[in-house]
Amino acid sequence: MRKTPILLADGRELVYYNEGDGSDHQEPDTRDLGQFGPSSQIRRDPLLDQWVIVAGHRQDRTHMPAAEDCPLCPSTESRKSEIPSSDYDVVVFENRFPSLSQKSAYPKTDNPLYASAPGWGRCEVICFTSSHSASFSSLSRSRVRMIIDVWTERTEQMSRIPDVQQVFCFENRGSEIGVTEPHPHGQIYGYPFVTSRTSSMLASAAEFQSRTGKNLFDAVVANEAENSIRTVVHSDHWIAFVPFAARWPYEIHLYPLRRVPDFQALTDIERDELAVVYLDLLGRFDRLFPKPAPYIAAWHQAPLTGDRSDFAFHLELFTSRRGPDKLKYLAGSESAMDVFVGDIIPEEAALRLREVGNPT
Amino acid sequence: MRKTPILLADGRELVYYNEGDGSDHQEPDTRDLGQFGPSSQIRRDPLLDQWVIVAGHRQDRTHMPAAEDCPLCPSTESRKSEIPSSDYDVVVFENRFPSLSQKSAYPKTDNPLYASAPGWGRCEVICFTSSHSASFSSLSRSRVRMIIDVWTERTEQMSRIPDVQQVFCFENRGSEIGVTEPHPHGQIYGYPFVTSRTSSMLASAAEFQSRTGKNLFDAVVANEAENSIRTVVHSDHWIAFVPFAARWPYEIHLYPLRRVPDFQALTDIERDELAVVYLDLLGRFDRLFPKPAPYIAAWHQAPLTGDRSDFAFHLELFTSRRGPDKLKYLAGSESAMDVFVGDIIPEEAALRLREVGNPT
Repeated sequence: MRKTPILLADGRELVYYNEGDGSDHQEPDTRDLGQFGPSSQIRRDPLLDQWVIVAGHRQDRTHMPAAEDCPLCPSTESRKSEIPSSDYDVVVFENRFPSLSQKSAYPKTDNPLYASAPGWGRCEVICFTSSHSASFSSLSRSRVRMIIDVWTERTEQMSRIPDVQQVFCFENRGSEIGVTEPHPHGQIYGYPFVTSRTSSMLASAAEFQSRTGKNLFDAVVANEAENSIRTVVHSDHWIAFVPFAARWPYEIHLYPLRRVPDFQALTDIERDELAVVYLDLLGRFDRLFPKPAPYIAAWHQAPLTGDRSDFAFHLELFTSRRGPDKLKYLAGSESAMDVFVGDIIPEEAALRLREVGNPT
Repeated sequence: MRKTPILLADGRELVYYNEGDGSDHQEPDTRDLGQFGPSSQIRRDPLLDQWVIVAGHRQDRTHMPAAEDCPLCPSTESRKSEIPSSDYDVVVFENRFPSLSQKSAYPKTDNPLYASAPGWGRCEVICFTSSHSASFSSLSRSRVRMIIDVWTERTEQMSRIPDVQQVFCFENRGSEIGVTEPHPHGQIYGYPFVTSRTSSMLASAAEFQSRTGKNLFDAVVANEAENSIRTVVHSDHWIAFVPFAARWPYEIHLYPLRRVPDFQALTDIERDELAVVYLDLLGRFDRLFPKPAPYIAAWHQAPLTGDRSDFAFHLELFTSRRGPDKLKYLAGSESAMDVFVGDIIPEEAALRLREVGNPT
């Protein structure tokens, strides 16, 4: 994998990742972008004890551009995109409309009731392919294998930013769930705090450890591996299952059989197999319904602070589609009370996900 | 307010609430509905330590019926709906496709890793008017005043069910957020557990109390009343404001100025004024955009267990609409990490909500 970093016209960083030798990617960004000066802040909700990001400048971000104006396609003579080169394999760059950045000038306040701080951190976009109409599930195994290494490398890079406490790689796919840019891409957030979801998992794990002497993630993985009723895929190094208390119509959690904190800790053999298994799972989501299901793919990594060994790196992949023409919406119970009401029994979802395995 | 209870053909309870004398509502339900035997369960997510409701029978619930088939309109000679009478003011009945009921026969399990239990509890539908094309914001003040009394009475009734630990009155309004039935109606859930959201608030309040000796809700209300930058409406007995760390593009929290645990504790004067203020707030949501904003209106009441006096009854009203043709979707950061990214600065949302006050 060859890396070529450049700077965009407004000073943002961009890195090309090439599978082979290919282009030297020395095309300059000739656009007149003005200053990159996003300003966001984080505010602590005192009732829920959670951070909320307030990023007013994002209200005007790009919204469903026409395909010929796609900012994630390579540039051409007549149309300059976010990527100056005329082709690329995988490219990563700082989001032009970031929720978090190292630029924010908001003051930190220490009101006993209302804490707030600048929205320091980093938001990157990762383009998985230069092909506008492709999808992650259509990528070659070697490309996916490379993307796993890119996620690893970006996690390492973001971990070096002093304010960043947690790195989150994810992909939102499908206009049904609000994706405003169809070009195959994901995002990488470097949060300046440990997210609420991760804190909850760590608290549960600590409680389980003190009650049973065991690691909670290990117990879940062992239970699912033994009692295969919710298993979707069980390979040499990975297990994918529908969780016992799934929130979404179709939801899959994917764990390595060996507990590791993050991408970096995976061996080459585990990575090779992950490329195969992840493509397999996405193919199942494509085949669940007459058209591919929209999804969110969330790679959970240990935060950078505290004892990282208790947390288990894993993927949570889910779709809000509950039928060919029905979506699950988060209504009063979910949005206001955090109580999900599922329409599909997890064991039946697993059965269905096993049925739509690769037909070849 | 006159109450007339009847039983529907499958044994479910229905109660008519009349403003004046009106009909005696003795029309029988002549439909052939078969047995009412919903079966749901609750499962504990071990990683997040939250209950999830699994209700497989809901997958086939009514989905966007044609207006002439509306199950919430009064019955006619030729078309029998859920409401046998030919007219009504306000009516409440057990949901035919409930997430929770007193019928479930699932066994309780006490696996140390995976707890589950029958989905005992109750789900009611409340129809605010017999007029199919009305909206809550178009109701008369006297009707709203009566609905406040109905919410109070239903909360009292549900509180008597031994399994119910928390009563939640809410309304989901607008097809954009997944409402499958446009007739003006709300829902009332009796949960067999304290919801995760309420537990979080109580934990924050306990922590604040031990740190400052003060009640957290009181501190928030006092702060907003004093520093009016986020205030939307401040009347004799109520204050409505955009919260400091709002999650949604437009979000309003409405508190009585006197801390009470639930609907029942409100005085007549507070109820009278609540009818006025709530209609005022809904009118603002109607006027924010060229067409009325979809919304979720969530009435937070103290759970039935524990010390109820620390909790402050309040409304959380929010819309996911962030522009005339844009919705906020919950993508990776929100759905997978519980970190909301807001596009609209709370103080600017409050300014806008003050601007769209009643023009008369």
